[in-house]
Amino acid sequence: MFHRFLPKEFNFFDLFEKQSGFALDAAVQFKDIISKGDLSEESVKKIKDIEHLGDEAAHDIIKQLNTSFITPFDREDIMALTKEIDDVTDMINTIVGRMTVYKLTKPSKEMAKFADLIEESVRLVVCAVKGLRDLKHSKSITDSCVEVNRLENVGDALRDEVLAELFEREKDPIAVIKWKEIYQDAETVLDICEDVAHVVGSIMIKQA
Amino acid sequence: MFHRFLPKEFNFFDLFEKQSGFALDAAVQFKDIISKGDLSEESVKKIKDIEHLGDEAAHDIIKQLNTSFITPFDREDIMALTKEIDDVTDMINTIVGRMTVYKLTKPSKEMAKFADLIEESVRLVVCAVKGLRDLKHSKSITDSCVEVNRLENVGDALRDEVLAELFEREKDPIAVIKWKEIYQDAETVLDICEDVAHVVGSIMIKQA
Amino acid sequence: MFHRFLPKEFNFFDLFEKQSGFALDAAVQFKDIISKGDLSEESVKKIKDIEHLGDEAAHDIIKQLNTSFITPFDREDIMALTKEIDDVTDMINTIVGRMTVYKLTKPSKEMAKFADLIEESVRLVVCAVKGLRDLKHSKSITDSCVEVNRLENVGDALRDEVLAELFEREKDPIAVIKWKEIYQDAETVLDICEDVAHVVGSIMIKQA
Repeated sequence: MFHRFLPKEFNFFDLFEKQSGFALDAAVQFKDIISKGDLSEESVKKIKDIEHLGDEAAHDIIKQLNTSFITPFDREDIMALTKEIDDVTDMINTIVGRMTVYKLTKPSKEMAKFADLIEESVRLVVCAVKGLRDLKHSKSITDSCVEVNRLENVGDALRDEVLAELFEREKDPIAVIKWKEIYQDAETVLDICEDVAHVVGSIMIKQA
Repeated sequence: MFHRFLPKEFNFFDLFEKQSGFALDAAVQFKDIISKGDLSEESVKKIKDIEHLGDEAAHDIIKQLNTSFITPFDREDIMALTKEIDDVTDMINTIVGRMTVYKLTKPSKEMAKFADLIEESVRLVVCAVKGLRDLKHSKSITDSCVEVNRLENVGDALRDEVLAELFEREKDPIAVIKWKEIYQDAETVLDICEDVAHVVGSIMIKQA
Repeated sequence: MFHRFLPKEFNFFDLFEKQSGFALDAAVQFKDIISKGDLSEESVKKIKDIEHLGDEAAHDIIKQLNTSFITPFDREDIMALTKEIDDVTDMINTIVGRMTVYKLTKPSKEMAKFADLIEESVRLVVCAVKGLRDLKHSKSITDSCVEVNRLENVGDALRDEVLAELFEREKDPIAVIKWKEIYQDAETVLDICEDVAHVVGSIMIKQA
């Protein structure tokens, strides 16, 4: 009942959905960039703009947190959740930045697989975050979190396979340096999605 | 007195000893793998299985934490301790995974030194964690933590020495890329052990 | 009023100023080393000694925290602030250590630019930390934090530019491996300064 009296800005659920929405925007734009091998200034700027919006959303949450007496769940969980969602968007932006600097404009089948996994995982993260609004239907949260964990394992195996192949095939050490970092970064996005899922899962258990 | 009435599952000390025990199992198995240069599927699977058990132990602690009203020390310290111990096992597993992907099957004297340091340090971590059970005899905790810090410094020096030698001797850049990462990872295990020691030390001081 | 009755050691502001002062000492010494390309044993030892003093200052704060009932701001903020300031000094020391191991004694114009940015940023961090003492004049904190954020963006752009140039010009893969890591580390110092600024900013808002 009480939350009816709170001003609209106090709605952390709206803020979290907004923030995770930007992470998904980044993942979708990333997939587009990778599938086309399009690292044009315009495409890269799109990702940067999304990252900037995500940053602002994170700031709004922290500002809200620092000025709210009542929060829907523990303050440290709100902090952790914002930080991890922010890290997802940041990492995607970092990868695109690195690919630009390294001039990795040739489409790579392997990266396309990672981009698919990342989009799928971030979509599940959005689901899990949405689920926090109504913990009575917690099954959808649990299902999303389990699937995010599974995708992280798939990502691990993909990275191992791709790196083994890279070291086998690529004779140019400079190319190895570049691609090794990019593939490891791509897998890191899935790690961070798993971190978000852990935070959501732990909030869910506490509220149960 | 009161803890007598708590159900058995509430015993965080047992859970922490179990979890740190898996970290030690991983360190022992790691030393075995390194000394034999044995990256067979069977050996690697052993480490993975231990990492999986460690994961489950960490989950048990977090579940316990999220459903307990009374905890033997601060909730955030319990979280931090579980996370750091988990990171030890994870990092050892990561190294073995990387060595497999990079096909680094030739035994290396340098890695053997790291494996010794790691086993020694994790053994001390287990001691320190055990000490939490009875803070009246805190000297053994302090001694273990001091020694873990010392081993981290030894590891730092070893990494510097080994990397300098690698850059001096190894002319194949691909080999440099691989070994540099593995040696830095090995030193990271000792860093994480030091992080565990810090958490244990800070719990000890607060309870004093 | 009450803080008058607290023993002198309880003054967290003094302790934080001391700790951030060591970060600045490290930044100044770093700039000196870089500008002269002087990685002599003596110069490197100076940085190590500063890092050691910074470590002790961090320990003093944590000890204080663990034994104090009353703290000027939230305990977790004190922990976070100490950790981040410590990370600044640590990272500077790590870079110098790496450059020594990699024998990168030739002065580099690019590193000189980073050393300038780092010194400037750490100086602003010291300002922001000092500002915590008197939150009535919070404008100087806000200004410092905004400027630290700006310098981090400048550092990002510099790193991208420098790495692009490195991959373009440098044909020796071993040199690429070394310098790439050092430039990325240099930018990390600016990231950590931004983290300090975030913690200070969040403390400021809470106390407002």
